[in-house]
Amino acid sequence: MLLRVRAAVAQLAAGLGAQPPAEPRGGGAGAGPGRGSPPPAAFCRPAFLQLTPEELRRADDHTGRAVQSPRDSRGRLPWSTGYAEVINAGKSQHNEDQACCEVVFVEQRPSPRGSLAPREGSRELDGGRKGFYFHYWALFDGHAGSGAAVMASERLHLHICEQLRDLVEILQDPSPPPICLPHDTKTGSADPTQVSHTEDHGEAPNDAVPRFHLEKAVSHESLVVGAIENAFKHMPAASLCPQDEQIERERASQHLAGGCCALAAIYLMGKFYVANAGDSRAIIIRNGEIIPMSREFTPETERQRLQFLALLRPELLGKEFTHLEFPRRIQPKELGKKVLYRDQNMNGWAYKKIEEDDLKFPLIFGEGKKARMMATIGVTRGLGDHDLKVFSSNIHIKPFLSCFPEVRVYDLTQYEHCPDDVLVLGTDGLWDVTNDQEVAAVVMEVLTSYEPNDPCRYTMVAQELVVRSRGVLKERGWRLANDKLGSGDDISVFVIPLGGPGNYT
Amino acid sequence: MLLRVRAAVAQLAAGLGAQPPAEPRGGGAGAGPGRGSPPPAAFCRPAFLQLTPEELRRADDHTGRAVQSPRDSRGRLPWSTGYAEVINAGKSQHNEDQACCEVVFVEQRPSPRGSLAPREGSRELDGGRKGFYFHYWALFDGHAGSGAAVMASERLHLHICEQLRDLVEILQDPSPPPICLPHDTKTGSADPTQVSHTEDHGEAPNDAVPRFHLEKAVSHESLVVGAIENAFKHMPAASLCPQDEQIERERASQHLAGGCCALAAIYLMGKFYVANAGDSRAIIIRNGEIIPMSREFTPETERQRLQFLALLRPELLGKEFTHLEFPRRIQPKELGKKVLYRDQNMNGWAYKKIEEDDLKFPLIFGEGKKARMMATIGVTRGLGDHDLKVFSSNIHIKPFLSCFPEVRVYDLTQYEHCPDDVLVLGTDGLWDVTNDQEVAAVVMEVLTSYEPNDPCRYTMVAQELVVRSRGVLKERGWRLANDKLGSGDDISVFVIPLGGPGNYT
Repeated sequence: MLLRVRAAVAQLAAGLGAQPPAEPRGGGAGAGPGRGSPPPAAFCRPAFLQLTPEELRRADDHTGRAVQSPRDSRGRLPWSTGYAEVINAGKSQHNEDQACCEVVFVEQRPSPRGSLAPREGSRELDGGRKGFYFHYWALFDGHAGSGAAVMASERLHLHICEQLRDLVEILQDPSPPPICLPHDTKTGSADPTQVSHTEDHGEAPNDAVPRFHLEKAVSHESLVVGAIENAFKHMPAASLCPQDEQIERERASQHLAGGCCALAAIYLMGKFYVANAGDSRAIIIRNGEIIPMSREFTPETERQRLQFLALLRPELLGKEFTHLEFPRRIQPKELGKKVLYRDQNMNGWAYKKIEEDDLKFPLIFGEGKKARMMATIGVTRGLGDHDLKVFSSNIHIKPFLSCFPEVRVYDLTQYEHCPDDVLVLGTDGLWDVTNDQEVAAVVMEVLTSYEPNDPCRYTMVAQELVVRSRGVLKERGWRLANDKLGSGDDISVFVIPLGGPGNYT
Repeated sequence: MLLRVRAAVAQLAAGLGAQPPAEPRGGGAGAGPGRGSPPPAAFCRPAFLQLTPEELRRADDHTGRAVQSPRDSRGRLPWSTGYAEVINAGKSQHNEDQACCEVVFVEQRPSPRGSLAPREGSRELDGGRKGFYFHYWALFDGHAGSGAAVMASERLHLHICEQLRDLVEILQDPSPPPICLPHDTKTGSADPTQVSHTEDHGEAPNDAVPRFHLEKAVSHESLVVGAIENAFKHMPAASLCPQDEQIERERASQHLAGGCCALAAIYLMGKFYVANAGDSRAIIIRNGEIIPMSREFTPETERQRLQFLALLRPELLGKEFTHLEFPRRIQPKELGKKVLYRDQNMNGWAYKKIEEDDLKFPLIFGEGKKARMMATIGVTRGLGDHDLKVFSSNIHIKPFLSCFPEVRVYDLTQYEHCPDDVLVLGTDGLWDVTNDQEVAAVVMEVLTSYEPNDPCRYTMVAQELVVRSRGVLKERGWRLANDKLGSGDDISVFVIPLGGPGNYT
């Protein structure tokens, strides 16, 4: 079993700009293992696949579309997690999905008053390092290039680690998190015993008397959620207007191409935190029951947010788009007619008289998988896409995209999980052709044909999910068992056993 | 049984400004029955209560807090709907809740090319009037005066009727609604047989070729939802920047005081549409199961919308507020310390270093029933509040308030309802002290003690719900059976039988 525990401390704390990729990725050309600047967005596959150059070529073949999984024993993932992937049927040169699976050690910041950069060998000096581990699985579905997905798969867990470092003591202390940390202490190095609620509550007689004396309870869980949210925000590929020049320098130096959806599952202190920004999807299958652990962020699901922004910032529309939605494009000859529309406040539809402005292209247009924002992009959250513009225009898409994930929490301790209970993460290549119920059926069908303690069984599930969604190559393309079209997209799947923490580490 | 069918056509179409209140309200002084301008916000109770002046005085008595319901037979509401209300324990001079129950006829617009104003007696001239009925129940929970609630209870159903008039033929035609109505026809008077989808699809050769040839399916149901949404928007008390001068004149002439939450249930063609803007609440109790039919809109539930608006329009904060949320007010002495916060994108919390700007009062502050926006208001959707400002400042609250309801649809034909299945509408005076499960228990308990065909049984439920939420006056105030504090707020409840359409009309 490959338990790649990593002390992420040194990798990030010395400054993001100078950091190498977390791990050499894939075995192919261009994915150099050097410790210098990362190569710009070369084709690579997840390191845990340990592909040889020959295997990498096979993985990159659109014709064969061979399913890739970790090797039997050497490449086994934490908790015997299952993983499988397959390249698209030709829609892009390479597989633009990326995956990452790590066990990360979050070390408390070592120096209360000194520099944030760790001293060389500081870990060795600390006899008992203070910190905790989290398990991490993530899928990144790239578009318009693989740069953002590769970068995100190398970095997101490190950013999460960095955010959590501030919370090492707080999360391990059962008392409520302090609302205010002491003045002269660097965040995270605070000694909670020194943090007095009473002191912070006390109002100096000269202070303006506040109108309320309330104090909101903040849970440990919501601190982890906040840490994950901020980790996404601080990714080089996330920030729209980076306040941190270092981040901006890194972005420029890496020539990040394209963007990516990000779906990450973090296991920490008995709870799963599933963070999603984009149209990948996670579900838990527990005793045959389906529990959605994410929702998709698309022009349709985020219509009202996008229309609201467009209404308040019409200059972002470049005089080419209208914030109103119409069921189809309005023709100039329809000026003055009454046509169905809806605005940022409406869920229903009503008729309005068409004016000149309504002839512009609608900000949100199309339905289902064909829904697009600004006629360009079908996902509205994720990382990257800084340079994405509306076709043959100078209108930027990025201001409408959000890098923030929705984080859902699942408490693993609230239920006695059996070996057949799993968390499935999949990119949209899976879900486009295989729905929740079908995925659950495959999970149960495959798992029952393997012994509960067989460490390969979750990989077998992942492979079967990928194969069933890809289909088989026939004369009329890739076809499913029911002869419908298989997914021509990249497909990546994690199958994570929920009985994991006790039985599979 | 009082079936006050009203042809709302004449009342609205001739212009909102000149309209009298829909019905003289209550029997008390000031609620004159004249056909001139409505009296400005005098104390009144729903017309269907048919209170005598003496009864009105009793209903207005904070000490006795007598429960009011329609009289036995004369005042019976459609479907034998139950209703009960009680005044607050002294928090405002009068009961600021209002209620309305109507059966409204929606008549197709009579004149395709003429004026929108109906000719005198036009209904008589039409032998077979084209149209349909809808049933309507609504609660309005006023604050800071009763003007908005009184006006809304008189007008909202008329505005809904007005919006639906455009749809009379379309809703009665089983084919999909036309996306575009003909050019030279006034809305609603369109003859759907003249509306050609093919014609609208056709692209003139000279038109710019659209990038997509999609056409989104729009359901009849979503047209009704859109009509209800727009009815709220077009209420005099709703518009922030009224484009319609008539509406603005009316608002000015009526001296609308205060604001109100609005919760309305519309039964139309086999479906219930429950529209909610505020913190009233509706649930269906069906075979003992609870189905929520609304959610509350408060500073807590709408935090992210409000913070997003404040971020994009900082001038609305008048330099007094910060869009960030903190768990408590920050003290000047905490400058430079790290304190928990969250912004418009976050659901979790994180620490940030306090800067000068963070010392401003948070836009959203407090928890639960004490949560306030701009330290002023505890609901964030509704009607009115045009003149509401932050205490001792010139900062307007209204730009942050939304008049748009969330509309949930319940298809009555999908389930065989028994006489014990009901829809309960209640103002927050009910829900503050009685939760969904307790309401369901009272419903079942009371209904089983009456014959299924007893028309009084729903009124008995409504009364019991109000009495149990008000409690009994003891030495230490109004107390519930468990000795906890009863609701000191106005309480209003409708109990609508879902077996209604067939059995109770």
